[in-house]
Amino acid sequence: MHSFPLFLLTALSIFLMTAQSSAQQASQQRYTKIPAGYLMVLRQGDDVFAEIEKLAIKQKIPSATLAGMGFVNARFGFFNFKTKEYDPKEFEDVEMASMTGSIAWQDGKPSLHCHGVITGKDFRAYGGHLLGATVSTGSLEITFTVHDKLLERTMEQPLGANVLQLKD
Amino acid sequence: MHSFPLFLLTALSIFLMTAQSSAQQASQQRYTKIPAGYLMVLRQGDDVFAEIEKLAIKQKIPSATLAGMGFVNARFGFFNFKTKEYDPKEFEDVEMASMTGSIAWQDGKPSLHCHGVITGKDFRAYGGHLLGATVSTGSLEITFTVHDKLLERTMEQPLGANVLQLKD
Amino acid sequence: MHSFPLFLLTALSIFLMTAQSSAQQASQQRYTKIPAGYLMVLRQGDDVFAEIEKLAIKQKIPSATLAGMGFVNARFGFFNFKTKEYDPKEFEDVEMASMTGSIAWQDGKPSLHCHGVITGKDFRAYGGHLLGATVSTGSLEITFTVHDKLLERTMEQPLGANVLQLKD
Repeated sequence: MHSFPLFLLTALSIFLMTAQSSAQQASQQRYTKIPAGYLMVLRQGDDVFAEIEKLAIKQKIPSATLAGMGFVNARFGFFNFKTKEYDPKEFEDVEMASMTGSIAWQDGKPSLHCHGVITGKDFRAYGGHLLGATVSTGSLEITFTVHDKLLERTMEQPLGANVLQLKD
Repeated sequence: MHSFPLFLLTALSIFLMTAQSSAQQASQQRYTKIPAGYLMVLRQGDDVFAEIEKLAIKQKIPSATLAGMGFVNARFGFFNFKTKEYDPKEFEDVEMASMTGSIAWQDGKPSLHCHGVITGKDFRAYGGHLLGATVSTGSLEITFTVHDKLLERTMEQPLGANVLQLKD
Repeated sequence: MHSFPLFLLTALSIFLMTAQSSAQQASQQRYTKIPAGYLMVLRQGDDVFAEIEKLAIKQKIPSATLAGMGFVNARFGFFNFKTKEYDPKEFEDVEMASMTGSIAWQDGKPSLHCHGVITGKDFRAYGGHLLGATVSTGSLEITFTVHDKLLERTMEQPLGANVLQLKD
């Protein structure tokens, strides 16, 4: 045994630790059931929209309203009616002071619509329509109030905007 | 038939199209029942406070908390303790990044108290006490969590502010 | 009776009025039960975090999400990763345009995590992680959505942040 190279042992240790860490992150419980719907806690590096979509698909959420807060990197977009595209702006390492949105469905996939307000170290607030976000050095807590109706979002013309369609 | 004046036909067409459009807007379903209370979707031109008041009256909502987001024209007011009036400011075509409020009753009428945060194309956030809003080129989604107690708002003196009155 | 000193009567009156006022403030009902959890209304001078903690303890709230709005003096802090402390900033007599947070437990005591957005008379928005707040000339309405699971917040290392721990 004394002839077993040290560097191989070290490499093995690092490999095992990394594998364990990845497995922990992958298996990390990201939400729990509550009477109102679900409570989600995301951690550093998590892709916010991807995790919400996974929840919607796995738990077959018909539709839901969400409210959240945490510490994030966020990308906002303001719709430009001339170019018909969102003019984007990114903010890194900021408090998500408020996040409000809804889950519906479109073309068989979850359709998120989220707005947010972020603040940095000068405490000034920015925000609007959220195009995406990842969790920064902290966490993000989101509460989902789940509804009992399968709701769709559809593009309405000539408005040119996706609108949540209600039904009785 | 060939002697039937074209301008009359045109006028008739426009009249029918307008009537149909108005009927659609009037009959447009603006809310649906959910376990927590009601989910509302307002569209371009809708008067936000008027629609919330209609919901409160028609559904006899004893009291409720609301949360919303969308695209609006909004009018905010900051209370001036000298003049005892709200100094107003309007914002056109802005994202409603967050809207938080409550429904109670006062003098037999629905009493709304709403705060909001809006952002424009520079993503800077403004807001406060909402005096009124209409939906701009987009929609406004509002979730109402309905309570089981009939609550009143009353003017408290010497504070000079309307305050939600609780009861067991 | 005519020999009874007037100043003593005056002092007695003032004492009784003050005592009554304090008793009113102490006995003032600050929350009521609603289907979703609790609805709280705080008034001028109330310490927001202290009142939420009292509610959590008295009603044995296992965990909850909160949403609020009102008129406050607020103290925000932005976490400084070098000093490992919050750089604070205070805002007096401002609208709380949005307040979002959660209640959990840590070391047997309620653990609050609240974010907020405030606006002053120029309507500009500021905010972030709330370190504390008192109600100013107005009120503060907070709705608590109560969950059925006893949740803890624990300090996670090397992150150096308190994170809400979920469980099935």
